[in-house]
Amino acid sequence: MYTDHSITEIDTLLAKSEAAFYQYKKSSLKERAHFMRSIATEIEALGEELIMTAQKETHLSEERLHAERKRTIFQLNSYADAAEQGNWLEARIDLGDEDRIPVKPDLRKMLVPLGPVVVFGASNFPFAYSTAGGDTACAFAAGCPVIVKAHPAHVETSTLVARAILAAADKCKMPKGIFTHIYGADFKVGEYLVKHNAVKAVGFTGSYSGGRALFDLAAQRNVPIPVFAEMGSVNPVFLLPDKLNQHYQWIADKLAYSITQDMGQFCTNPGLMIAIKSEALDQYVKQLLVNLHEITPSKMLHKGIARNYINNMQTAITQRHVDVLYQSDNKLGEEDGMVTIAKVSGKYFLTNVQLHQEVFGPYSLLVECNDEAEMLKVAERLEGQLTTTLMATAADIKNNSNLINVLTEKCGRLIMNGVPTGVEVVLSMQHGGPFPACTDSRFTAVGADGIKRFARPVSFQNWTNEFLPDELKNENPLNIWRTVNNQLTQAAIDKA
Amino acid sequence: MYTDHSITEIDTLLAKSEAAFYQYKKSSLKERAHFMRSIATEIEALGEELIMTAQKETHLSEERLHAERKRTIFQLNSYADAAEQGNWLEARIDLGDEDRIPVKPDLRKMLVPLGPVVVFGASNFPFAYSTAGGDTACAFAAGCPVIVKAHPAHVETSTLVARAILAAADKCKMPKGIFTHIYGADFKVGEYLVKHNAVKAVGFTGSYSGGRALFDLAAQRNVPIPVFAEMGSVNPVFLLPDKLNQHYQWIADKLAYSITQDMGQFCTNPGLMIAIKSEALDQYVKQLLVNLHEITPSKMLHKGIARNYINNMQTAITQRHVDVLYQSDNKLGEEDGMVTIAKVSGKYFLTNVQLHQEVFGPYSLLVECNDEAEMLKVAERLEGQLTTTLMATAADIKNNSNLINVLTEKCGRLIMNGVPTGVEVVLSMQHGGPFPACTDSRFTAVGADGIKRFARPVSFQNWTNEFLPDELKNENPLNIWRTVNNQLTQAAIDKA
Repeated sequence: MYTDHSITEIDTLLAKSEAAFYQYKKSSLKERAHFMRSIATEIEALGEELIMTAQKETHLSEERLHAERKRTIFQLNSYADAAEQGNWLEARIDLGDEDRIPVKPDLRKMLVPLGPVVVFGASNFPFAYSTAGGDTACAFAAGCPVIVKAHPAHVETSTLVARAILAAADKCKMPKGIFTHIYGADFKVGEYLVKHNAVKAVGFTGSYSGGRALFDLAAQRNVPIPVFAEMGSVNPVFLLPDKLNQHYQWIADKLAYSITQDMGQFCTNPGLMIAIKSEALDQYVKQLLVNLHEITPSKMLHKGIARNYINNMQTAITQRHVDVLYQSDNKLGEEDGMVTIAKVSGKYFLTNVQLHQEVFGPYSLLVECNDEAEMLKVAERLEGQLTTTLMATAADIKNNSNLINVLTEKCGRLIMNGVPTGVEVVLSMQHGGPFPACTDSRFTAVGADGIKRFARPVSFQNWTNEFLPDELKNENPLNIWRTVNNQLTQAAIDKA
Repeated sequence: MYTDHSITEIDTLLAKSEAAFYQYKKSSLKERAHFMRSIATEIEALGEELIMTAQKETHLSEERLHAERKRTIFQLNSYADAAEQGNWLEARIDLGDEDRIPVKPDLRKMLVPLGPVVVFGASNFPFAYSTAGGDTACAFAAGCPVIVKAHPAHVETSTLVARAILAAADKCKMPKGIFTHIYGADFKVGEYLVKHNAVKAVGFTGSYSGGRALFDLAAQRNVPIPVFAEMGSVNPVFLLPDKLNQHYQWIADKLAYSITQDMGQFCTNPGLMIAIKSEALDQYVKQLLVNLHEITPSKMLHKGIARNYINNMQTAITQRHVDVLYQSDNKLGEEDGMVTIAKVSGKYFLTNVQLHQEVFGPYSLLVECNDEAEMLKVAERLEGQLTTTLMATAADIKNNSNLINVLTEKCGRLIMNGVPTGVEVVLSMQHGGPFPACTDSRFTAVGADGIKRFARPVSFQNWTNEFLPDELKNENPLNIWRTVNNQLTQAAIDKA
């Protein structure tokens, strides 16, 4: 139904994207925000057709899809607000001094867009991390045209959303080429896009193998470009002794839900639970299993994901010294997710890196440690993570300062007495983390700070006020916060 | 005299560096700033020995070296001020909401250090971009231990400065391993450092080939790390018609000085002048040559640089259709820089990319265009640059909006009626630019924003106030600027 775009077609489309960039980069913050809000309106206007199409393609529940559409609209609107507020521009002004020897020049700096951005969406978020998802919203906010490669697993949904974006672009009189929707089930299409001269940055959400491949391609270009690839994570949860003792039931309730929510198909799914052997731990496990028994597995996103899950889960549970504690009784080979909890000792976890890998789906591995020292070693061996979670009382925190010191180095978000699923869309969110959670831990995929992935600073030296961008003019006509002579201020500059 | 460190020695030193990181990352902003200021004091205390040693190793004038030491001390002190002020932390707080369904968590984010940073200094800045230069200052400010590979061209100078840093570390009771000085004339030492597990980021200032090699090594690691390599630039200067007509003498004065200052051995040396054929241009050239005649060439940094200059300059001036307009009359083969101005038509410049390459030294190429359209084409074909400069009146700016639109895409700093040499150390400085000027145009090598190259955000979700870093506590005990619920404020949070 949707044939891949040819190389020639892509060249033509990307030439338009490049031309659009030279127009769109000059748009005001207000115009960008208006465009983004219009996209939100157009997506809303797709109504039930969008939900039904996505449901058919992803097996996600109607309720979830409604929530996700709401989130997508919230992202577009809240990043539009942030774009318009202008703090992300990092406007800095240092006034000149004619009397200094040598003369001190007037310097004014702000972020400008990188250029056309290619976005590869995620299969597990058909709206919020796909065609009009976080990466697209951030790129538009920054002033970049966007090229989306439609995800083959929900190409019809993507087509509907693309239509909404184009309708908004039309209504807002945006330049032709501001948004491009590319069909490419073949990996070669993605490869061609990432290597294309017109492309200046890449946003990706998906698997490690996919993200790493794109990162490598981009780094090997004659002119390398930045790739922000969010590649998932095991999201270890540390169950500390005092907390376990006091609140094992509460923890079991929280984690049973978090592990199985939408069949565990979240990059923040808690795939690892680490605790020290104890009676409280046994009680926790018992309660967890009771809770899981009450959960009816549902279909996974698509056959490929279901098959991968079964393969990876089987690989994990057939490792030596791994015991299965729980498995839901639906049959293997079906598309339903098979909820699985396994267990291994700290000792064997430390010697088998296979067990450190993400199993994307409703799976979690309990690592039972002998003591605090072993738990610390487990923490030290972990790869980079999107999140780590501590179930801990104040006493636990005081007793485990080394552990917390180590865990800060391992993740982008450190959660206390909560679950990693549920990624709040706020400025203070960090959705990224040390490699392999993402390809550059200095940026985030969620929250308006994600705009900065697609922008770079430019300094204007000794420009007359008249020709400076509004953001840097003496009068501060946009009333944005700027750092003037090292002080944050919204004040105009008095050059009388 | 200085033998390369062995692999075993490096392993031992880097293990100490890693251990130091776990201590130093917990240091307060005040402690880091105090350490940085102490380094400045210790460098000052090296007195004339430092200047004399550097002079012997680099042939730079005493005056220049005094100025550069002053700059280095200013960098350390001003980045210390910035570190302490804390704006670079990008502290963001979004308060939770228990009444929302689902409950909105409390989220607080700030930048934390990446880990041990390897710094490769520049041959042309023995102080300011070397052992205790901008990269080292930024890494210390961020909370990272530093490993400097001593530049083989000024290893004695580097050793003196390393001693000053270690003395300061000692006085400030910094953890052992906070600073490591590695000898490695062999490229393999640098390679080993960049591939080492303990190393989390790289700062480099130097040639394209060196920077690109390190970037590739870092990208190919199992766990890639960010490399900020500043690799120089041709720094095109556009001489627009009206300005040329009105002020050709002023431009000739400025550029003669800028091209030959310290024998052109600056990454911001103006290596390209672009103008449209005219009488005023002929007059400008005449005046430029008169000015250059009055300048006595001096020795270049070292024999290798002098040899490279002669080779690259010869390659450039022997290209077809290139004419030499001026050459100083010192003999080839000596260590003195041979000041050279060449000329080519826009047409031949466009067809010969060899002429687009940097010739590091006192060389500049005039590109004479037929008309505005050809000048625009020249701009479009340029590679990424640290700077571009416009010599322009208000009328020129109005007449050349397309040109300016294009030039913004080509550089990190856009100078109006000035020269690119002279890189002011202020927050609003952007010293970077699209590849190949540097490996990541989103960061800067100069100015306190350079700290952010070595830091990444971490979100703390639902932490009790007591256990949060001071920077994120309700009381705001450090009185830093934070974005609370999307508003910048220094106010404490009232949780009553």
